[in-house]
Amino acid sequence: MNQELNEKGRLLKNAAAQLAALSDRARRDALLRVAEHLEKRQTQIMAANQEDLRLGEANGISKALLDRMALSPERIAGIAEGLRQVAQLPDVLGRVQQSWQRPNGLQIERVSVPLGVIGMIYEARPNVTVDAAGLCLKTGNAVLLRGGTAVARSNQVLVNLMQEALGETEVPASAVQLLTSPDREAVKEMLKLNQYLDVVIPRGGGGLIQMVVREATVPVIETGVGVCHTYIDRAADPEMAIRIAVNAKTNRPSVCNAMETLLVHRSWAESHLTKLADVLREKGVEIRGCAVTRHLLDGLDIAEATEDDWAAEYLDLILSVKVVEDLPEALAHIARYGTKHSEAIVTEDKAAAEAFLSNVDAAAAYHNASTRFTDGFEFGFGAEIGISTQKLHARGPMGLEALTSYKYKIRGSGQIKGS
Amino acid sequence: MNQELNEKGRLLKNAAAQLAALSDRARRDALLRVAEHLEKRQTQIMAANQEDLRLGEANGISKALLDRMALSPERIAGIAEGLRQVAQLPDVLGRVQQSWQRPNGLQIERVSVPLGVIGMIYEARPNVTVDAAGLCLKTGNAVLLRGGTAVARSNQVLVNLMQEALGETEVPASAVQLLTSPDREAVKEMLKLNQYLDVVIPRGGGGLIQMVVREATVPVIETGVGVCHTYIDRAADPEMAIRIAVNAKTNRPSVCNAMETLLVHRSWAESHLTKLADVLREKGVEIRGCAVTRHLLDGLDIAEATEDDWAAEYLDLILSVKVVEDLPEALAHIARYGTKHSEAIVTEDKAAAEAFLSNVDAAAAYHNASTRFTDGFEFGFGAEIGISTQKLHARGPMGLEALTSYKYKIRGSGQIKGS
Repeated sequence: MNQELNEKGRLLKNAAAQLAALSDRARRDALLRVAEHLEKRQTQIMAANQEDLRLGEANGISKALLDRMALSPERIAGIAEGLRQVAQLPDVLGRVQQSWQRPNGLQIERVSVPLGVIGMIYEARPNVTVDAAGLCLKTGNAVLLRGGTAVARSNQVLVNLMQEALGETEVPASAVQLLTSPDREAVKEMLKLNQYLDVVIPRGGGGLIQMVVREATVPVIETGVGVCHTYIDRAADPEMAIRIAVNAKTNRPSVCNAMETLLVHRSWAESHLTKLADVLREKGVEIRGCAVTRHLLDGLDIAEATEDDWAAEYLDLILSVKVVEDLPEALAHIARYGTKHSEAIVTEDKAAAEAFLSNVDAAAAYHNASTRFTDGFEFGFGAEIGISTQKLHARGPMGLEALTSYKYKIRGSGQIKGS
Repeated sequence: MNQELNEKGRLLKNAAAQLAALSDRARRDALLRVAEHLEKRQTQIMAANQEDLRLGEANGISKALLDRMALSPERIAGIAEGLRQVAQLPDVLGRVQQSWQRPNGLQIERVSVPLGVIGMIYEARPNVTVDAAGLCLKTGNAVLLRGGTAVARSNQVLVNLMQEALGETEVPASAVQLLTSPDREAVKEMLKLNQYLDVVIPRGGGGLIQMVVREATVPVIETGVGVCHTYIDRAADPEMAIRIAVNAKTNRPSVCNAMETLLVHRSWAESHLTKLADVLREKGVEIRGCAVTRHLLDGLDIAEATEDDWAAEYLDLILSVKVVEDLPEALAHIARYGTKHSEAIVTEDKAAAEAFLSNVDAAAAYHNASTRFTDGFEFGFGAEIGISTQKLHARGPMGLEALTSYKYKIRGSGQIKGS
């Protein structure tokens, strides 16, 4: 086995056992200490980050990616502030979720506990290094971090600094580790580190997530990919439907809860689709349509939507539009092309709305609201680890609870099992 | 892709959408109908099973395995009775688990829903075919079954019969499918059927489970392997400790919640280990011990426990015994060799008991009771899908709730997201 993984895995497993026994106060104080160190050591962090950026530029990394790699005094202050907010969130550990007594006298209690050791795999975004570590520590978990190698220097400084800060607290410094091997094979080994890792969470684009799902033997929480639909029903209020569709597409097109495909009931489309298309095009949206859409928007020279378009997560100002005959056709389209992330219906028809909310297979099903609200902060969780698109364990926006498990404590008085 | 998997996957996905919309009454009635058909068609089931057994015997399958493959009128009646009990359990779907309003007026509701399509992989035990299907249907899930090929004929008859019975109910007949290809490659493809399966649950021995964990890209609920410990503390009541240890080891040694290693505090061992060893040996238990154990049980010719023994899930009348100096040493041993299944402490010292319950990393932590109680029925769940040894989603004995997920229903009045 990769020696680095073996050593750090062992350290993390020990740290997790210590962490699980600490009070919320101890974990909170540790996060506040980390925040303090971040701000004090800003110059050192910036220097490492500048070096990453310089090398990135020399290696021809795009301007957009360089921007995501970059730290600034403001961004560092923002990261520290994020830690302080997470530190103050209510504790999610040690809660008695259920308790009952069996006829034989056994007292059974189900209590929330940390997951243990979490592996985080993410792209070249140094802010995630601190955010992820903060969420894991707050919930009593040790964490093995593996960020994109393009910010290796930034991550190394950040992890050193976090360990140094933790060294001044009750949380063991070894509870945060960085996998430094730049080797892709090391990542694959990390994904199979079942003896040390309890779960792996990938954060990033579809390629990264699919690699993790394919390679991991450690349980994975799959996050992120969203081919989100908005269905404008026959009975939709025109002004509201246009406002919601435009917001879902254009408010922030690069994120997973942005709309990618618009489904429109034929009768609504006949009256209002031209108006909606005008607004979208004013906002710079390229429309790709089904035959009926292209017919209705005859003057606009709309490209034909292909099979690939219906399945596409554009993450861009592009929208595929399909006119449907009724709600069942809309639901069938979503069942075929949706990614179980976020789906919305706009309608004044309560029965149609309830049928949609019940029958659409998605983490978040909306009536008369933009899909853009699928987000831990918008849900009021005060934090977000990611948005789960699987059905095991956690679904949709994940707050602190998603980083916990439970155990049963059973108290007896000598009970043994009969034959 | 394997054509059978593709076709059955598509049927199951459609069936799952229909199932999710059915009432508990419809699902309950379907299970009762299946139970009725099972009893009516007993002769046909027995004929297929006899053929499986004849072939198994010809192929040299052991008597113990043949016994697990065998059906009898009594076993069939038992399976039908099990279905009737599951049918009557309280519905776990459509429960509003949480609901709240956001400052912007969005109403968020978290509601329990089925997982969707479940893949079950298990050994040559035809009773599991019906049990698993019953649990899945009760919880609104469609199911793809893959049982051991040694009972292929029995399974085919049972699945045909279930589909026939479902054809007379509101539950779609296609909601239960059997993967009939005897090919091992087909099983590996099933484990990667992410477009159709929401989760895979293996039931069986360690080899089967490890294969599933290694090969699956579909989320897995790992079940089963239990290297369970009982720690007899310094302050244990001697009579109670002996009763619990003997029960945990000998009540049913072949199951995952049986004790495999006994840890004994030195001072208790010095006074009582000889007595305990005598009782265990009367029950036919072979003891393998650490150096101190062998010294204390000098006259008994105890074999030395090796590294392999500490890690062994014997599932047999063999017990490894280690004498420890204190509770931390017992906990460290369990952290190293335990499988996070079930662990027990016997003591009259409340503080030691609470420290053990809090610090041991196990699905079920017992004070003064036998580990044999880790079981869905003993916990009062009325059913058991398996015992999870992972921390994601469900931990320990899994009842009906473990076969559910949740979705968020969000009701708005035109809300859009600000910048």
